[in-house]
Amino acid sequence: MSVFTTLSLEEVSVWLKDFSIGNLVKLKGIAAGITNTNYFVITDQQKYVLTIFEKHTATELPYFVSLMAHLAKHGVPCPSPVQDKHGIALHLLKGKPALMVTCLNGEDVATPNLAQVKQVASTLANMHLAGESFTETGSNQRAQDWFDSTAQMVMPKLEAQDATLLTSELNYQKGLHVDNLPRGVIHGDLFRDNVLFDGDKLGGFIDFYYACSDILAYDVAIAMNEWCLHHNGSDLGSIDQDKANAFLAAYQTLRPFTQQENTLWLAMLRRAALRFWLSRLHDFYFPPEGELTYTKDPNHFKKLLQQYMHIADNLSI
Amino acid sequence: MSVFTTLSLEEVSVWLKDFSIGNLVKLKGIAAGITNTNYFVITDQQKYVLTIFEKHTATELPYFVSLMAHLAKHGVPCPSPVQDKHGIALHLLKGKPALMVTCLNGEDVATPNLAQVKQVASTLANMHLAGESFTETGSNQRAQDWFDSTAQMVMPKLEAQDATLLTSELNYQKGLHVDNLPRGVIHGDLFRDNVLFDGDKLGGFIDFYYACSDILAYDVAIAMNEWCLHHNGSDLGSIDQDKANAFLAAYQTLRPFTQQENTLWLAMLRRAALRFWLSRLHDFYFPPEGELTYTKDPNHFKKLLQQYMHIADNLSI
Repeated sequence: MSVFTTLSLEEVSVWLKDFSIGNLVKLKGIAAGITNTNYFVITDQQKYVLTIFEKHTATELPYFVSLMAHLAKHGVPCPSPVQDKHGIALHLLKGKPALMVTCLNGEDVATPNLAQVKQVASTLANMHLAGESFTETGSNQRAQDWFDSTAQMVMPKLEAQDATLLTSELNYQKGLHVDNLPRGVIHGDLFRDNVLFDGDKLGGFIDFYYACSDILAYDVAIAMNEWCLHHNGSDLGSIDQDKANAFLAAYQTLRPFTQQENTLWLAMLRRAALRFWLSRLHDFYFPPEGELTYTKDPNHFKKLLQQYMHIADNLSI
Repeated sequence: MSVFTTLSLEEVSVWLKDFSIGNLVKLKGIAAGITNTNYFVITDQQKYVLTIFEKHTATELPYFVSLMAHLAKHGVPCPSPVQDKHGIALHLLKGKPALMVTCLNGEDVATPNLAQVKQVASTLANMHLAGESFTETGSNQRAQDWFDSTAQMVMPKLEAQDATLLTSELNYQKGLHVDNLPRGVIHGDLFRDNVLFDGDKLGGFIDFYYACSDILAYDVAIAMNEWCLHHNGSDLGSIDQDKANAFLAAYQTLRPFTQQENTLWLAMLRRAALRFWLSRLHDFYFPPEGELTYTKDPNHFKKLLQQYMHIADNLSI
C-alpha cells in the first residue's frame, strides 16, 4: 500500500505528444518508494526527470515550478521545467500533479574539497541574487509553527539537560530581532545530496521543495553547517574553519553581508543548527511506524549548536 | 551516521560468559538500519534475538522486560527475556541497554485465513487475562498528548474536509466517558508483522515496545482493524464481517465484554482507526528528511473511520 504511481512506456509516450522533446526511448523508475514518484524519461533528444507529486497539493506546486524556471533563466544551474507546446509545465498525469525537468549532469560528493565548497558558496550567492527579481512568495514549511509543534512532540522524549538546551535555544531565537535581515528566495535544504558535481565542476542545485521566502543569511548558515565540516570517514565533525572562511569569502564576493547580517551571523548559524537538530530529533523519536528506516544521529546538530553557543558565551553576545 | 551498534563475535562471546546458554556459534545482524539494533545470537544450544536499544532510555525498558517475562511465564507465546547467571536480563553492552530474548518460530502472514484470525483473537484474550496479575504499569506513548501534538503538526497539511473530519473525531473521542471500561496490559500494535505463524499455528506475538496500561477493548479494536479486513491483492479494504464476527466470538469466549464495553465498542473501533489515521498522516507528511522511505497510505484508516461513523449515524449513537 505504498504510494507510488506506476507509469507505462505507452502512457508516457501518449503524454509526450503534447511536448516537443522527441520520442520516448526509455522510461526508468528512480528509487522506488521515494517521497515522490520519479522517472528518468529518455527521448531520442535528451534525458529528463519526471516527477509525480504524491504529497504536495496542486496549489503549492506552481511556486516551485516558477522558481526553478526563473532561476534557470537567470543562469543558476538547476533543473529547468519543461513546458508543453502550449507553454504549460505543470500537468496532471493519472490524476496527480506531474512535472518534467531537465536532467543535470553530475552526482553528489561525500567529502567536498575546498574548491567544491567555494563553488557551492558562489552558486548560492548567485541564487540569492537571481531570486531578487522573482516576484512570487512561498511560505517556509519549517517556520515558527513547525518549530513549536515539533518541539512539543519531542520534548517528552528528551533527557532533562537536552530539554533545557532546546527550550533555551527556542526562546533565544524567538527573542531575536530579525526584521532588518535581507530576505529573499532561499533553498532551505542545501545538503550534499542536493548538489551535483561533475568532477570538480558544480553541475547544479536540485530538490527545491523546501525553497521559500526567508532570511538569506539563514540559508547561508544552513549550507555552511553542511559544507564546512571536518570529515572523519563517514562521520561529520565540527566546523572546519578553513572551509568556513573560504565559503564566506566566496559568498560575500558576490553578495556582501549587511551590517545586520554580520551582527546576527552567529545567531543564524545557531538557528540553522537548531532547525536540523529539531528535525533529526523528530525523525529519531517518531520515525514512520512499522518501517525499517535509517536513523541519522541528532547529536551532530546538537554539538554544532553547543559549539556556537560556546563561541557566543566567549564573545558575551 | 546512522545509529547502529556493531558487535563482534568476540565481544558477544565474552558477554555470553555471564549466561548459561552455551557457546556462541554464529552472530548475524538483522536488517541493518532498523529502529533498534538486532542480532541473531546462535549458540550450540539455541537461537536468540539480541536487541541493543538505541532510543528507549534505560528507565523505560524494565517494564517491557518484566512484561514479556510475565506473559511468557503465563503461557502467552511471546519472546522470553534471557537472564544471566545472576538473574539479570537487562544489560549494558557498549554502553547501551541490551536484552536477549528467545527466538520464536514462524513468520508473519500477508493474508490471514479465518483459522489464523481466530487464533490471534484468543491469544489476545489470553494475553489480556494474563496481564491481570501483572502489577507494573506502563504509560501509553500514543496517549492524549501525542494525539494533540500530532494533530497540531498535520492539521496545516490537510484539505479542509479532512481537517474537519479529524477535528470532529478528536473531539468526539475526548468527550467519551471511558472510565468504566476495563483496563490492563495492551499490546498496542498487533499488526500482521507482529504475529508469527508456523504454518497455521500461531508462533507468538512479538514487538511489545508499544505495550502499556490502557483500555483492553481499544487493543481488541486495533487488532480487529488489522486482522478482519477484505484483502485485494496487497491492498486492504473494508471490514470483513465474517472475520470480524469470528474474531469477536473467539475473543469473548475467553474474556466476554462487559456491558460498558459492548456500549462503547464502536467508539473503540473509531478510536483505533483514528490512532492509525493520525500516525499515518504524520508519517506521510513528516517522513524522515532526506530519506527514501515507503509511505503507507493514510486513507485506509480514514476510510475505516468513515465506515464506522456511517454505522454510528445509522444507529443514531
